[in-house]
Amino acid sequence: MRKVGIIGLGHVGATLAYTLVTENLVDELVLIDKDEKLAISEQYDLLDAQVFLTGKTTIIIQDYQALRDASVIVFCAGQISALGDDGDRFKELEITSKIVEDTAPQIKQSGFDGIIVTITNPCDVIAAYMQKLTGFETNKVFGTGTMLDTARMKQAVSRNLAIDSRNVGGYVYGEHGDSQFVAWSSVTVGDRPLLSWNRELDLETLDEDVRAGGWNAFAGKGYTSYGIATCAARLIRMILNDSKTIVPVSAYNKQADVYYGQPVVIGKNGIESFVDCPLTDKENDSLTCSIEIIKNGLANLPFKP
Amino acid sequence: MRKVGIIGLGHVGATLAYTLVTENLVDELVLIDKDEKLAISEQYDLLDAQVFLTGKTTIIIQDYQALRDASVIVFCAGQISALGDDGDRFKELEITSKIVEDTAPQIKQSGFDGIIVTITNPCDVIAAYMQKLTGFETNKVFGTGTMLDTARMKQAVSRNLAIDSRNVGGYVYGEHGDSQFVAWSSVTVGDRPLLSWNRELDLETLDEDVRAGGWNAFAGKGYTSYGIATCAARLIRMILNDSKTIVPVSAYNKQADVYYGQPVVIGKNGIESFVDCPLTDKENDSLTCSIEIIKNGLANLPFKP
Amino acid sequence: MRKVGIIGLGHVGATLAYTLVTENLVDELVLIDKDEKLAISEQYDLLDAQVFLTGKTTIIIQDYQALRDASVIVFCAGQISALGDDGDRFKELEITSKIVEDTAPQIKQSGFDGIIVTITNPCDVIAAYMQKLTGFETNKVFGTGTMLDTARMKQAVSRNLAIDSRNVGGYVYGEHGDSQFVAWSSVTVGDRPLLSWNRELDLETLDEDVRAGGWNAFAGKGYTSYGIATCAARLIRMILNDSKTIVPVSAYNKQADVYYGQPVVIGKNGIESFVDCPLTDKENDSLTCSIEIIKNGLANLPFKP
Amino acid sequence: MRKVGIIGLGHVGATLAYTLVTENLVDELVLIDKDEKLAISEQYDLLDAQVFLTGKTTIIIQDYQALRDASVIVFCAGQISALGDDGDRFKELEITSKIVEDTAPQIKQSGFDGIIVTITNPCDVIAAYMQKLTGFETNKVFGTGTMLDTARMKQAVSRNLAIDSRNVGGYVYGEHGDSQFVAWSSVTVGDRPLLSWNRELDLETLDEDVRAGGWNAFAGKGYTSYGIATCAARLIRMILNDSKTIVPVSAYNKQADVYYGQPVVIGKNGIESFVDCPLTDKENDSLTCSIEIIKNGLANLPFKP
Repeated sequence: MRKVGIIGLGHVGATLAYTLVTENLVDELVLIDKDEKLAISEQYDLLDAQVFLTGKTTIIIQDYQALRDASVIVFCAGQISALGDDGDRFKELEITSKIVEDTAPQIKQSGFDGIIVTITNPCDVIAAYMQKLTGFETNKVFGTGTMLDTARMKQAVSRNLAIDSRNVGGYVYGEHGDSQFVAWSSVTVGDRPLLSWNRELDLETLDEDVRAGGWNAFAGKGYTSYGIATCAARLIRMILNDSKTIVPVSAYNKQADVYYGQPVVIGKNGIESFVDCPLTDKENDSLTCSIEIIKNGLANLPFKP
Repeated sequence: MRKVGIIGLGHVGATLAYTLVTENLVDELVLIDKDEKLAISEQYDLLDAQVFLTGKTTIIIQDYQALRDASVIVFCAGQISALGDDGDRFKELEITSKIVEDTAPQIKQSGFDGIIVTITNPCDVIAAYMQKLTGFETNKVFGTGTMLDTARMKQAVSRNLAIDSRNVGGYVYGEHGDSQFVAWSSVTVGDRPLLSWNRELDLETLDEDVRAGGWNAFAGKGYTSYGIATCAARLIRMILNDSKTIVPVSAYNKQADVYYGQPVVIGKNGIESFVDCPLTDKENDSLTCSIEIIKNGLANLPFKP
Repeated sequence: MRKVGIIGLGHVGATLAYTLVTENLVDELVLIDKDEKLAISEQYDLLDAQVFLTGKTTIIIQDYQALRDASVIVFCAGQISALGDDGDRFKELEITSKIVEDTAPQIKQSGFDGIIVTITNPCDVIAAYMQKLTGFETNKVFGTGTMLDTARMKQAVSRNLAIDSRNVGGYVYGEHGDSQFVAWSSVTVGDRPLLSWNRELDLETLDEDVRAGGWNAFAGKGYTSYGIATCAARLIRMILNDSKTIVPVSAYNKQADVYYGQPVVIGKNGIESFVDCPLTDKENDSLTCSIEIIKNGLANLPFKP
Repeated sequence: MRKVGIIGLGHVGATLAYTLVTENLVDELVLIDKDEKLAISEQYDLLDAQVFLTGKTTIIIQDYQALRDASVIVFCAGQISALGDDGDRFKELEITSKIVEDTAPQIKQSGFDGIIVTITNPCDVIAAYMQKLTGFETNKVFGTGTMLDTARMKQAVSRNLAIDSRNVGGYVYGEHGDSQFVAWSSVTVGDRPLLSWNRELDLETLDEDVRAGGWNAFAGKGYTSYGIATCAARLIRMILNDSKTIVPVSAYNKQADVYYGQPVVIGKNGIESFVDCPLTDKENDSLTCSIEIIKNGLANLPFKP
């Protein structure tokens, strides 16, 4: 039986639940939120939807014990209103770190032994904090990190070349935040290096287009939900299928002793291995800088290893 | 090419857009909202999601002219905050009737010649108003009406008998509102009359359970989205596939000269025909009463045939 | 992890495997056939297909031990060429009963503890024989029986009324063979009794149309595959989802002490309960007759309880 | 309305029809075969399957006129028994070229104005012949060519690196036949050049593994169906969605004046543009050689431009 838990039923968590139900990706879905009435509301709304669907997903709410035999927990509790007007996700940390402190012990206590995927921002710091407070192995806790940013890069390239975004390869590295960067040296279109396409591509304009894409998705509604929920649904499928798929997520890097966005192989054990793409010197500098920012975020948290 | 328009990008419209993109049910999707920044936001968020999906849906925003060759328009513009604390959907009418007055001429002007499905509340009155103001044939304009309520009835029966809700047949009739009623005489489980199941079923308790289900879906978040969006996606598929499927929607009944929830056959021409299920005397009384309430709602609107 | 085994890779087994892979309904699929080269062929062909799909299904071949932790085994080994020119499925029994005798001990030895769904003809006799020779509880072994015949009845009604076949309810009872019969008293369209539709329906003509439908599907290729494979895929999903869905299959009836086609509730335990639809006297006579024919088929088999 | 025609209902055509119906990728499907009874058989079998599915596909048979407003025709008529024991697809040409001569005028006469995708072998020659005899623009007629071979290459790399085949990029070029070759210089894994993976990869062994994969898929059943049908279904979706996706197919190259397998961009106009990947000198030699073989195949056909 495929069983997944979602902790936090804001825009992202609820949309993810809907996606999993629509695709019948799981047999049992455990929904937990600090607001019990909200959890009940989503449970009933999702059951109504099922009458029009084909598969059946049993929906359990507000029960940490039910997570015991789940394969994956997606942690997306947060408070989008805490996000600064300047879009600084670190402003959310004060609130979201408290939620991790409250949640991690309950996850442990449930006997859960699967994979935790964190979405809550600031994503890299929260993934690290969740790993510390649960004490789970680092391969079993990771954040969605730059997987969504990478999708936005692919959309920007797709817009500029009029080529299907699924034909665009490459990665956004580092923080799921302002210090992230597109490793343009890794970007391919149709399995050819982007830079070999015989067009006058201006990477700075593309960089701006990537940023604008993210902002456009956010600005009008004050949050984003569809891109990130679909992203999380794909990660869940990769874990359940043990598909050994390469994607960029926020994973723990032993050498740097920190979580940051980078390509890895996802399978039933979470992070199965790392994909060591060569970066240019400039890209390596950007990475160092981004890692520093994530470490600073972590420095203010109470846990000390 | 399958092309669909959505007017109104609140919870329902946006979730419907996401559903259509996720299922790749259409090739082109036109999104229109009074708030252009919101439309941009949804467009980008849906494009981000597509990187993780397989099909491609072109997303056009804020362009009434683009509706010209669409097969279906779903009208779901509204203002949920106008809903009375008592859940009275007629309180929304003052605002939503104005939106219809503003929208209908623009739909006509676009040259659109397909099917209009209305979700906006009060659903039966708005469907009627939209038909009047566009002047379209009555079979080409209908409301989702009691299709969602019927799903909730099926869930309630499913909960009580521990049988898949897809095995429950039957219809909720009348207003998509307080005066609606379950025609229990039409309800079947596994193609057997509900009342023949050898169990002590108390229809009043079931009636209460149906109402409670709807309320539970609504109460925690102050709106519902997943059930109704999935419902609308199914109607769109029935029209595009010309599937001749029987479902209860808010359709124009010539004899009563009013729109109300009743079983009909849906195909490429919208309402293809009516399904005349026999009702008990008591059910007929309930229907008469519900029709009266819808007519009263219409009476206050400016259009006079 | 969702794991399913298929024993017998003829037209039906191979198409079922393809369906499960296409829908990513399972994580692991075990394929077994007496012809190892055929199993290899299907494994590679299915892997090639996966490059164009999204989910991943691990495909294991020729390994009975791998069935140990599977949830469902579909048994569809047979030899269509053994079918008589007159379409008499009992002519296949001599060969197929031997295959059961060979297969059942290997299933038992694997430690498999799930549900066995049999498709091999004559379906009702083979389901019974498989249950006897494995010694599994009767609720855990059943045949697809009249589920496909019921689909054909629905198509025939759909053709005649120009209504979506998914709106047709009701059941074909008895033998998955010539003695089966449509219980027209159970047939509904749009949740109304078929016979109440105000049309001049001639049940004998409809009966003929049902038979002609099955024959038309068979005649041109000498077997059928798509209907029955989709049917089996739905049964697998009902079991994996524990969906408590009502469908007609060949199930063991204690009173009659025989397997025959009848409506039951399917869930994770296989046959969860029975649905006792009232039959007319004439229908009851037909059922008695059909049961007798199945019992005669069983009488010639070596097992004696 | 999405409409697609399939000409030839052997293993490939029938499986493709089933795939399109299962995914509800089209609203109308036209099936044509020289054996009318076979077409009837598939029509009924597919209708039976639809009772268990959700979308509806109208199935029309044996009607060339019905192709008039179709968007795509897939041509897969052939005779697998004509394939030489040595797997030489050119041995099929005598028969399959006759089928093209018979079919092309009927396609023209129908008024069809969409895209023709050919699967029949020898694929490159048949694609060219179909284009000549219909007189359609070269971008509107193409063969599946090395798209399936490329999938097999991806599976072989996936097997060797234990990485999801969907993460493998690159192309097989040239003839869909013995003279084809993997352009290893184009192959990427996780958007990194294959050859940069720090493993002792032996390309000759991989080449052999690719060939063995194709052979394994074929040998046990004497044909392949699932990989190629899924491949064709994806091409249909790309055309219907106008997705501008890069894939390798057999396309007409003006410079070489011949059809051969190479990466192109697929959209609603068929071949929208070409993707000019750099090849090594050795790869260019292999391409020249493969093109020569295709030209020789064409030389024996009656049409002379």
